Amino acid sequence: MRELDLIARIQERLRVGDDRVLRASGDDAAVVRASGVAVTSVDVAVEGVHFELATHSPADVGHKALASALSDLAAMGAGAGEAYVALGLPDGFGEGAALELVDGIVALGHRAGVTVAGGDVSAAPALVVAVTVVGWAADESELVGRDGARPGDLVGVTGQLGGSGAGLLLLGGIEADLSDEARAGLLRRHRRPEPRLDAGRALASAGAGAMIDVSDGIATDARHIAERSGSAVVVRLADLPLAPGVEEVARAVERDPLELAATAGDDYELLFTAPPDARTAVERAAGSAGAQVTWLGEVSPGGGLRLIGRDGATVDLSGYEHV
Amino acid sequence: MRELDLIARIQERLRVGDDRVLRASGDDAAVVRASGVAVTSVDVAVEGVHFELATHSPADVGHKALASALSDLAAMGAGAGEAYVALGLPDGFGEGAALELVDGIVALGHRAGVTVAGGDVSAAPALVVAVTVVGWAADESELVGRDGARPGDLVGVTGQLGGSGAGLLLLGGIEADLSDEARAGLLRRHRRPEPRLDAGRALASAGAGAMIDVSDGIATDARHIAERSGSAVVVRLADLPLAPGVEEVARAVERDPLELAATAGDDYELLFTAPPDARTAVERAAGSAGAQVTWLGEVSPGGGLRLIGRDGATVDLSGYEHV
Repeated sequence: MRELDLIARIQERLRVGDDRVLRASGDDAAVVRASGVAVTSVDVAVEGVHFELATHSPADVGHKALASALSDLAAMGAGAGEAYVALGLPDGFGEGAALELVDGIVALGHRAGVTVAGGDVSAAPALVVAVTVVGWAADESELVGRDGARPGDLVGVTGQLGGSGAGLLLLGGIEADLSDEARAGLLRRHRRPEPRLDAGRALASAGAGAMIDVSDGIATDARHIAERSGSAVVVRLADLPLAPGVEEVARAVERDPLELAATAGDDYELLFTAPPDARTAVERAAGSAGAQVTWLGEVSPGGGLRLIGRDGATVDLSGYEHV
Repeated sequence: MRELDLIARIQERLRVGDDRVLRASGDDAAVVRASGVAVTSVDVAVEGVHFELATHSPADVGHKALASALSDLAAMGAGAGEAYVALGLPDGFGEGAALELVDGIVALGHRAGVTVAGGDVSAAPALVVAVTVVGWAADESELVGRDGARPGDLVGVTGQLGGSGAGLLLLGGIEADLSDEARAGLLRRHRRPEPRLDAGRALASAGAGAMIDVSDGIATDARHIAERSGSAVVVRLADLPLAPGVEEVARAVERDPLELAATAGDDYELLFTAPPDARTAVERAAGSAGAQVTWLGEVSPGGGLRLIGRDGATVDLSGYEHV
């Protein structure tokens, strides 16, 4: 089997200095010095389901698989830690492509302070990348779950929405009236999302009560906060911060850009709640972590999600929701 | 998508009392109270590569995927902790089969003291089960790597070898002169291997210097110890503890049963080294953890693995080795 050769070549690429990692890949298991609590998430990406190799390079696939897993740690307010990568490689994918995929993972990991400390490689009928990420916090009280939204809280989101969904439409062949720069921005947003790890920690310490990453679109993700918190969440669609170019792409497919941005997913921004008196602290903390906050709703007694359209009427996007 | 429905039904099956797990599946990430060091391993099992659904039930697949990952923790002498499961499910696999697979994981986890604390589910072109397991130790010094074999040490192994390989041959249609009991034992050995977690901890505290689980056959695994320790490992094949029925199956395929047992893999016993003065302590510790120890070799200066045949001559099994 050439599997052990490939594993050896992957291991060479993983040697990064990290005194938290006592033993990495090469023994039966990795050994890592722990903090108080471990925060762990798993994300699996499958060719033909989550991405197509016709439109995503191996490095894109590696980057996005790690980014998507790290985004879950960001949403808990956890610090970056280690990643463990299980690869299923189809016939003909080639060692060069496998190493490029690993390089995509390692490069993002390096910027995010994440060490790839172990993994496994197998043959598979399609490319499969399963990433487990472990983050650390001194104590559970530093973390923010989905269940802490309370009536009276404000609802905010970092960054811009709809960019990844618009990028996916462009990859599908949609022609939109866009500058080269806007087009490249949307494609990059889809292929190379950035997990908001710094912003997540900043929001957690500034008083965010509930938090989730926007992976399925806020029409779905805000509902998760409402359900887990036992409160009602109200979101004003007109206040969604659209990424540049989303309007043009939405026009090209004859959809409302706000509805596209609320349902398209894969933006990996952070949706959160915070009490009104934490408003300024939250804006400042997010800003110092490089993220602009937009306030777009409130938490109220009751349950469920209420989306409000431009005209003030309730909007039903359940046909587009990830349910 | 019915994916979220399936995830909800899986989550219902995972609720086990474990006060180490502060938040499990249902938030963005699991939160687990840590000990001093985290010991982590990843194992991916793919239909058509590691198993066939014609000969393995969904519960077998789940059991074996977790067992194989836990065996790596056993080989470090780590205590059981949590498991995270990424499933890729092919069309037509069905929700019932997916839940049976999860039940296979949960049942072994329950016996081994392992909580399934999170995971992910996706569509995939073939069944893929990627399991990340995390074990815990108070300190790195409690753990045993592959690199601690020293000249003069004895080489020992727990339990019996060759059973899983013989079971695989039976599944492939080999006819052997076996009692029903021996046949069932070999099949069970292949489909439902038991990770030696208790024995691993016992051996570590009794003075094992190097340890590895026998997943590829000792002709491969003993070589890993030799290479990582910078010592020579000598193994006497005549002393291999054969599982009942291995001789009969080997005869049916006209192979030497010792060579079959040394190369077939998937036995998930523990191969280890220990100084001679720890011999009695090691035997007692393993025995109290339910594992019989067989001594089958020594560590000497130099490097590499030397396998000694019945006649005292060196045997070359590299044609069968997992290299």
